[in-house]
Amino acid sequence: MAEDKKPIVGVIMGSQSDLTVMQEAAEILEELGVPCEVTIVSAHRTPHRMISYAEEARKRGLKVIIAGAGGAAHLPGMVASITTLPVIGVPVKSRNSIDGWDSILSILQMPGGIPVATVALDGGKNAGILAAEIVSTFDDKVANALQAYKDKLKSTVEDSATKLENQGWKSAQIGFKK
Amino acid sequence: MAEDKKPIVGVIMGSQSDLTVMQEAAEILEELGVPCEVTIVSAHRTPHRMISYAEEARKRGLKVIIAGAGGAAHLPGMVASITTLPVIGVPVKSRNSIDGWDSILSILQMPGGIPVATVALDGGKNAGILAAEIVSTFDDKVANALQAYKDKLKSTVEDSATKLENQGWKSAQIGFKK
Amino acid sequence: MAEDKKPIVGVIMGSQSDLTVMQEAAEILEELGVPCEVTIVSAHRTPHRMISYAEEARKRGLKVIIAGAGGAAHLPGMVASITTLPVIGVPVKSRNSIDGWDSILSILQMPGGIPVATVALDGGKNAGILAAEIVSTFDDKVANALQAYKDKLKSTVEDSATKLENQGWKSAQIGFKK
Amino acid sequence: MAEDKKPIVGVIMGSQSDLTVMQEAAEILEELGVPCEVTIVSAHRTPHRMISYAEEARKRGLKVIIAGAGGAAHLPGMVASITTLPVIGVPVKSRNSIDGWDSILSILQMPGGIPVATVALDGGKNAGILAAEIVSTFDDKVANALQAYKDKLKSTVEDSATKLENQGWKSAQIGFKK
Amino acid sequence: MAEDKKPIVGVIMGSQSDLTVMQEAAEILEELGVPCEVTIVSAHRTPHRMISYAEEARKRGLKVIIAGAGGAAHLPGMVASITTLPVIGVPVKSRNSIDGWDSILSILQMPGGIPVATVALDGGKNAGILAAEIVSTFDDKVANALQAYKDKLKSTVEDSATKLENQGWKSAQIGFKK
Amino acid sequence: MAEDKKPIVGVIMGSQSDLTVMQEAAEILEELGVPCEVTIVSAHRTPHRMISYAEEARKRGLKVIIAGAGGAAHLPGMVASITTLPVIGVPVKSRNSIDGWDSILSILQMPGGIPVATVALDGGKNAGILAAEIVSTFDDKVANALQAYKDKLKSTVEDSATKLENQGWKSAQIGFKK
Amino acid sequence: MAEDKKPIVGVIMGSQSDLTVMQEAAEILEELGVPCEVTIVSAHRTPHRMISYAEEARKRGLKVIIAGAGGAAHLPGMVASITTLPVIGVPVKSRNSIDGWDSILSILQMPGGIPVATVALDGGKNAGILAAEIVSTFDDKVANALQAYKDKLKSTVEDSATKLENQGWKSAQIGFKK
Amino acid sequence: MAEDKKPIVGVIMGSQSDLTVMQEAAEILEELGVPCEVTIVSAHRTPHRMISYAEEARKRGLKVIIAGAGGAAHLPGMVASITTLPVIGVPVKSRNSIDGWDSILSILQMPGGIPVATVALDGGKNAGILAAEIVSTFDDKVANALQAYKDKLKSTVEDSATKLENQGWKSAQIGFKK
Repeated sequence: MAEDKKPIVGVIMGSQSDLTVMQEAAEILEELGVPCEVTIVSAHRTPHRMISYAEEARKRGLKVIIAGAGGAAHLPGMVASITTLPVIGVPVKSRNSIDGWDSILSILQMPGGIPVATVALDGGKNAGILAAEIVSTFDDKVANALQAYKDKLKSTVEDSATKLENQGWKSAQIGFKK
Repeated sequence: MAEDKKPIVGVIMGSQSDLTVMQEAAEILEELGVPCEVTIVSAHRTPHRMISYAEEARKRGLKVIIAGAGGAAHLPGMVASITTLPVIGVPVKSRNSIDGWDSILSILQMPGGIPVATVALDGGKNAGILAAEIVSTFDDKVANALQAYKDKLKSTVEDSATKLENQGWKSAQIGFKK
Repeated sequence: MAEDKKPIVGVIMGSQSDLTVMQEAAEILEELGVPCEVTIVSAHRTPHRMISYAEEARKRGLKVIIAGAGGAAHLPGMVASITTLPVIGVPVKSRNSIDGWDSILSILQMPGGIPVATVALDGGKNAGILAAEIVSTFDDKVANALQAYKDKLKSTVEDSATKLENQGWKSAQIGFKK
Repeated sequence: MAEDKKPIVGVIMGSQSDLTVMQEAAEILEELGVPCEVTIVSAHRTPHRMISYAEEARKRGLKVIIAGAGGAAHLPGMVASITTLPVIGVPVKSRNSIDGWDSILSILQMPGGIPVATVALDGGKNAGILAAEIVSTFDDKVANALQAYKDKLKSTVEDSATKLENQGWKSAQIGFKK
Repeated sequence: MAEDKKPIVGVIMGSQSDLTVMQEAAEILEELGVPCEVTIVSAHRTPHRMISYAEEARKRGLKVIIAGAGGAAHLPGMVASITTLPVIGVPVKSRNSIDGWDSILSILQMPGGIPVATVALDGGKNAGILAAEIVSTFDDKVANALQAYKDKLKSTVEDSATKLENQGWKSAQIGFKK
Repeated sequence: MAEDKKPIVGVIMGSQSDLTVMQEAAEILEELGVPCEVTIVSAHRTPHRMISYAEEARKRGLKVIIAGAGGAAHLPGMVASITTLPVIGVPVKSRNSIDGWDSILSILQMPGGIPVATVALDGGKNAGILAAEIVSTFDDKVANALQAYKDKLKSTVEDSATKLENQGWKSAQIGFKK
Repeated sequence: MAEDKKPIVGVIMGSQSDLTVMQEAAEILEELGVPCEVTIVSAHRTPHRMISYAEEARKRGLKVIIAGAGGAAHLPGMVASITTLPVIGVPVKSRNSIDGWDSILSILQMPGGIPVATVALDGGKNAGILAAEIVSTFDDKVANALQAYKDKLKSTVEDSATKLENQGWKSAQIGFKK
Repeated sequence: MAEDKKPIVGVIMGSQSDLTVMQEAAEILEELGVPCEVTIVSAHRTPHRMISYAEEARKRGLKVIIAGAGGAAHLPGMVASITTLPVIGVPVKSRNSIDGWDSILSILQMPGGIPVATVALDGGKNAGILAAEIVSTFDDKVANALQAYKDKLKSTVEDSATKLENQGWKSAQIGFKK
């Protein structure tokens, strides 16, 4: 199981309430054979813990950090200010968020010199895939797993297209409509 | 001169390019008799300096910190995560900013427990006045200076109203139109 | 009990329907040992009451005013136009609000000379903490209470991190998922 | 001249810098034969003057108030909270405005019970026409002037259409292109 | 009853689904003693009916038209292009609306020459009050009804303030919390 | 039945979850007598299938392509980059969409040279009508069907207006209110 | 010359100031061999002219109408409410526009039954190409012209790519930098 | 020189006009010792070239692709739909862009399965640094170069802070003010 191996991706989030979104990163990483660790690190409530985590990440063998946060989301950018590892930011649409704009802009609009690789709102799964793509630059097994995943996405669409064409859209809708 | 006294307000900004906006805070503080210090502290380029600044602020005698930053503006929120002093955040409309929305939202939308007192976009002057208002809660001289400042605002408006009414709006416009 | 002492923070709101948000300010102020008063003052329905409240606030011993309002929210800015005390504005996401943008912008974007210390949308709790931080500039007991509160936030995050790491994210999720 | 008669429309603005926009209201009112007065009243810098102005407006014979303001624009809404006359609000795109959104939302989104008749951003001219339309409900001369104005708008468009059709769009453009 | 008298305000809307919002205009007009008529006129589905309605409005004795519409809301602006009566526009947040922005902007941002008096999103009630304020410029009875309405708004707030202060915010909340 | 004839409109969508919106296009096309085909083509999951579909569309006898997609919606624009047929884009408000803004802007804002005919958010029905209008430029039967459809829209509004006027808005509301 | 033939595309705009954007439609239509007419029709200033234009368009032999307008842009939607021809809407970013949002939303967000084929902000050229694509559904010569245009776009990109690759990006930039 | 070595990062853009932004990626990659290639690939004008580029990228030895585009920016997402390499998207604020929102949302909001690592608006430099960070996961020399770069950012800020503190903000401003 992926979690038993030495993790090379760190998945962190500001609070346990972000786990619903962030577990999707861990799940797809496991599916793609990339060992990861998952924990809670808050930029605003545990700033020193955040700094230690970022400072030690490379030494501990991590290759990528995925950081999710909502509202005025400082975790991804602050971690990126300390480590030279690639940091993937996941904007989380938290309670009281203004439709997610706050999370997106405070993760995306980093100043020159300190990039954060931002993914879509609540895009935990895509963050996991992006981390695997980064790992695939030096690990062919993961590259192959990604290609297999891509092929599966394709055949799923093709299957549903075939089914829809065969049934006709009226019947398809019957089984589909909520 | 205000700068000779021990500063009780710290005015910090992420880069020297923010000085055009942030000097307005220092200017009005001086006018109101509140000694301040001004320096550069970057959340993303000097995270450890930022942490030291925030940790030592209260011990060094500061009563308020004014922090200005643009884009994904993390400086005000990160300073507020460390100190228990009131932190005033000034969203700066920097180059590449998305009309200032990024600065505003990444300063304003702080999570529960870690407030930042946010002022208007490029509102350096209002940040200075707000800091003076905070000082006025324990310093009557500053309270009086603020009242005098408010009275002056009022009489300036009244004077321009009288002049406009006397001249009529057509003449007034002649001298005014760009 | 905090309410028995002479209040030094005034918590006001435009209508009783804002109480759900604004009571969080009162609750945290009580927890931090800062006596406050809570009442209803409407800029649009009781303009004279608003002016009296603002004019008498400093004389009555208040040190900070927290004002919450929704939509075209004029209460915080109008109170700030009259008093020289620090005024904290809480944008409330009311019914018919346009995702809270109206409340935020009509509180935040005050003209030069009349600052309002704006907190996050529906940020009643943070308004209370910010008021306590202002009080802490002259009251060491409140400064200590704030430090204790900050320490508690930190240890809560650390505890949930430890638990998550021990359980693993899969089990954690089991207990967590809604 | 319109200004010599007893004014029935009051045109007010927060600062003389709004005059460029607001004079368009006065100009069209004069053109339509509706006497108006123009002055400066600031909600934030002269709150008592604003209240007096609003309280006395009806008694002084005003029928409509046009109020222009920028940023967190409180003047139209506060005047409307005091008088029962129709109040027309003109959002002004001031310096530091966030593309005018702040002015628009803080004028438009008034709570139930206190309407402001909001016109387009920098819409001084339309505010004047709207005031004249209100006057036209009891003054047929103004109704006629409005109809003549509408007819002129129509014939101006028809003339430019004829000219464009006759010249062909290529020639038309030659004389037109900046 | 108001509906028995000759109507002087026309309340129109693009479809019956807007009636929930628009009936609030009719209700308050009735309360204020202003007779109105209510019907359905669609700019997009019945353009000729719309033009007839607008062309005949003044002749039929109407003094004000209130027009509500959602999405790309053209009804208020098109009616205003034809009549010289004051037209009040009510942006309705319809199904598929983009948070109401589409309705607001397509009603508010009218070109020079053709104003629409825009009220808040779903602001049917305020449209009714604004229409009554316009009527009050020539009808003292309505002016008095508006003043009585304003006084009632004020005393309702004062009563709830007194009750909240007497009970204390904790008890008040008990009875209030949803 | 329309589906039995050779289709001249192709209705495609990125995933079966878009069918709820996109079937409205197929339904109205059938009602207007325009034969169409419906299938699934994903720009991101089946890019080669998308290219084949677009390349062969004109040869296969299609006259119009309707493409619906959500989020970063690339299907309409990519199909338009390959075919010279008119392409109608339907922004779908998918899960995790930012209020539909992402779909709208990534379909609408195509660069010079590659237009997409964009309709309203979730506007499947309007996409179908627009396709029929295009067909009507060379098929008078469809032009007639469209005119009949327009007439029906008109009489439906007129009927509901008559009913509302006869009942009075109070009774109408009784049967209508949710 | 295209303008000498009987026009089959009508290019209309609300005012001559829109000609800078709208002439791009006429220019590309001429280049693609589609005869068009260009004139001024204002929804708000000449509503009857607009209705006549829309009612007679099909009878006069037009196949497509391109309508451009800014601000609260009602021209495209109102024309579409009357004719059953395809109507292409061009949002124009006019003076006082709110970054173009007003034009876009008041053209795009049409209600069910009345579609407008909306193109990008200031997208006059793309409107012309889209009109030609519609014509190409029954005119092979235009289909061929469109394919040639597409091929030219492609080879222009390929040429600039070859040049950039041969020169290297540093030299390329020397000749390019503004 | 970096360009002489076999490139491992591909920098592509939709048109030569994006080079001003995208050259910053090439410059910083060169500074960090990461060989890159730069060329033009348009999703909309050369879709087949785009597909070939993406399909061959991994085989040709590329490790990362940086793709910049403006408006309805489809290049980054379409390349990501084909390759399993990490793709970094740079939203470019092009002419006619709606303040950059269109570019940002059409790159960021990718559907599940197909991530794009999005950086800030016009963030060419940060895209280059992010690519180098990805390379640093398997190349220690680049990791060291990144650490040196980070150290330089830090000392630049510290130097400007020292200078500002020594001069005092008034003098500093003299030399700085534009």
